[in-house]
Amino acid sequence: MAACAGARCETVRMALPRVVIIGCGFGGLAAVRALAQAPVDVTLIDRTNHHLFQPLLYQVATAGLSAPAVAAPVRHILRRQMRSGRLTVLQAEAHRVDVGGHRVLLEDGSALPYEHLIVAAGAINSWFGHDDWARHAPALKTLADALAIRARVIGAFERAERCSDPAERQTWLNFVVIGGGPTGVELAGTLVEIARHTLPGEFRHIDSRQARVCLVEGAERLLGAFDPESSASAAAQLQRLGVELLTSARVTAIDDGGVTLQTVQGEQRLAARTVLWAAGVAASPLGRQIAADCGLQADRAGRVPVLPDLSLQGHPEISVIGDIATAFSKGQPVPGVSPAAKQMGRRAAHNLLARLQGRSTRAFIYADYGSLATLGRKAAVVQLPLGRLGTLRLSGYAAWLFWLFAHVYFLIGFRNRLMVLTDWAWNYWTFARHARVVAQAEAAPRP
Amino acid sequence: MAACAGARCETVRMALPRVVIIGCGFGGLAAVRALAQAPVDVTLIDRTNHHLFQPLLYQVATAGLSAPAVAAPVRHILRRQMRSGRLTVLQAEAHRVDVGGHRVLLEDGSALPYEHLIVAAGAINSWFGHDDWARHAPALKTLADALAIRARVIGAFERAERCSDPAERQTWLNFVVIGGGPTGVELAGTLVEIARHTLPGEFRHIDSRQARVCLVEGAERLLGAFDPESSASAAAQLQRLGVELLTSARVTAIDDGGVTLQTVQGEQRLAARTVLWAAGVAASPLGRQIAADCGLQADRAGRVPVLPDLSLQGHPEISVIGDIATAFSKGQPVPGVSPAAKQMGRRAAHNLLARLQGRSTRAFIYADYGSLATLGRKAAVVQLPLGRLGTLRLSGYAAWLFWLFAHVYFLIGFRNRLMVLTDWAWNYWTFARHARVVAQAEAAPRP
Repeated sequence: MAACAGARCETVRMALPRVVIIGCGFGGLAAVRALAQAPVDVTLIDRTNHHLFQPLLYQVATAGLSAPAVAAPVRHILRRQMRSGRLTVLQAEAHRVDVGGHRVLLEDGSALPYEHLIVAAGAINSWFGHDDWARHAPALKTLADALAIRARVIGAFERAERCSDPAERQTWLNFVVIGGGPTGVELAGTLVEIARHTLPGEFRHIDSRQARVCLVEGAERLLGAFDPESSASAAAQLQRLGVELLTSARVTAIDDGGVTLQTVQGEQRLAARTVLWAAGVAASPLGRQIAADCGLQADRAGRVPVLPDLSLQGHPEISVIGDIATAFSKGQPVPGVSPAAKQMGRRAAHNLLARLQGRSTRAFIYADYGSLATLGRKAAVVQLPLGRLGTLRLSGYAAWLFWLFAHVYFLIGFRNRLMVLTDWAWNYWTFARHARVVAQAEAAPRP
Repeated sequence: MAACAGARCETVRMALPRVVIIGCGFGGLAAVRALAQAPVDVTLIDRTNHHLFQPLLYQVATAGLSAPAVAAPVRHILRRQMRSGRLTVLQAEAHRVDVGGHRVLLEDGSALPYEHLIVAAGAINSWFGHDDWARHAPALKTLADALAIRARVIGAFERAERCSDPAERQTWLNFVVIGGGPTGVELAGTLVEIARHTLPGEFRHIDSRQARVCLVEGAERLLGAFDPESSASAAAQLQRLGVELLTSARVTAIDDGGVTLQTVQGEQRLAARTVLWAAGVAASPLGRQIAADCGLQADRAGRVPVLPDLSLQGHPEISVIGDIATAFSKGQPVPGVSPAAKQMGRRAAHNLLARLQGRSTRAFIYADYGSLATLGRKAAVVQLPLGRLGTLRLSGYAAWLFWLFAHVYFLIGFRNRLMVLTDWAWNYWTFARHARVVAQAEAAPRP
């Protein structure tokens, strides 16, 4: 019975155009879903077994949520679509794309042939050529990153508790977050919350409220993607929470003991045992490889330039979307945010179908529904374009509530939404952070 | 202000007898709590930052619960008691006990002096001298173990999906659980549930229902600590769920490809890519060290023989409790279960206070409130001693409900109870297992 079903399914597959989608982030998932009813045979590949709701990943890093609360198994999300017999999900790593041979080469040497390819491989952490900084300043991109950061942060307070030298103890209580984008401000704001609200009373030799959190930004203002009013509001809210801000500060060195900065006042040293990197990402290495093999020039971050319809010059069978693409909409670069990736995924899927049906493709137009960034408890900035009416700006508690419901609403799957809301309600009322659990004893930093 | 409080607290500490408690499992935690009102200065040390509710650890390994659902930060559990100023919690590893010097030596070379010591360091995984089996057959004792097993189990189905050779594919779908104690039967029953109820429909090249789960036990019957009626009921229920049972089977080899057994019918080979070890534990290495330095003979599993009042012969200042102790109650060995550890913790604490007050200590008497083991969905065995009335035995759904509420009731902290109940209700109704998320892409087994 099962064998028969398998055989029948094979026959159908042979007849359908094969679509390979690399990456199951917001872009890849949107593309797969947009192809649910289409007469194509889709194979989705991803290195991990889950779709990650990255906007909440900082909550895993700061022990507010468990890993399964912000990630859902890809197979589970797509189980209904899989019943069509036209979708295969593979946990595999795309090693490279054989552009001429129309194949994706996997890490185990096998190859997936395609007629159409959608590359949504996303971004990876980048220390801008300073790979030696990675060890001292971990970044936040994957679930594993988040759990490693959680271990460092929780472990730093444990180390401080055991430390008898006051100066040394304070370095375990100093935290530096590098990068004033959305991830950096979230991390900094939440670290302060942990130190001032979650941990007090739980230590005997230290007062966790003596922790210092410093947020370092290279540009003149935080949240460069927001307008100056929102940036200023974010800075004020963070300072009210207790974050020390250092803008126009360029990192020149990071080591075990802290960070060296070049500021307008000259060189400055921040002694801190815990340094987190939120200063930037680069495109997946697949970007450079594909660009080179298609005769295109990847940008400095390794992103692939795409045509207005998201396909590649000379390769209409390849679309590149999300954080691995350099796309423009109405002359403006499309920002690397999840709504943009979702919209690109849907556009790439629809254009793919248009090509199959001999219709012409359409240019991608980014619909900007606004920008939100949370800064900690009851603190956030929201900026919503209202067309001719101007821009709606929220800050403080109202912005935070808006952010909260927007994020929970967009979480994949009802199950996770319920779980995250329960967790948050609990955290909010009790100040507790239930996920303050470190699995590996050895994950705590050693002196 | 904070410094003053610290100084005052130092003064008080000097005056109070110092108690060191090693280990924050059921025994150690019970001892700490029993000393909450006592005029002693307690230092609790543990390698991890959490108390682990081990009876539910198999749910983390089988992706039914997230890690934070079965573990709570020690500091958070004890935060009220910590306000007394007489409790210190240290995340540290007890390297050895300097019995003569009355000091616990930590892994960083520092030492904790004590007047009284309670050793509750628990058990570690043991492959009975076959340490090379550890790589092929991971065991379940810590959160890290559980996450590693989860990655293997989830990864095995992923590997099967990518495997083109049918025989090879089946080896990825074969699971062997070694050891028919409570952990073994839980794992085996839950693996079948995953294969038959959670995953079907989520793969394209495999039918997860073709997974085979074999439970191997060296003795003649499962659940040796239960009476034969309960064992037989458990075996029947497991077989009904779909577990293949192999009793009186001794493991002679474990490698990448499976397990070799010596059975009454002769040698037998089980080809399986996933082998889980639930066949036994040994006491923490601290047991042998302490026994040797106190002139005592540890048993084969490294446990320390204790006097009826749980202290050591010739060393009334040291008590050893829980899985690291060989204790007797009314002539019977005390079983290595969590209620026994808790009771020993309380007894050791009370005896310590008796010594301080010049009263005589009391012998430990184990109150057996019954044994329960779950076998999977709606399947469990419960055995409750009713004194002269005989024994109450439950099996099937009734036993499972009993098990469920007993476990949730005993979970540490209201927060976790609520979370676990929500998770379970969801899993029960939907058959989903939301924690099927593997953080490390590289955690999946490679061919």
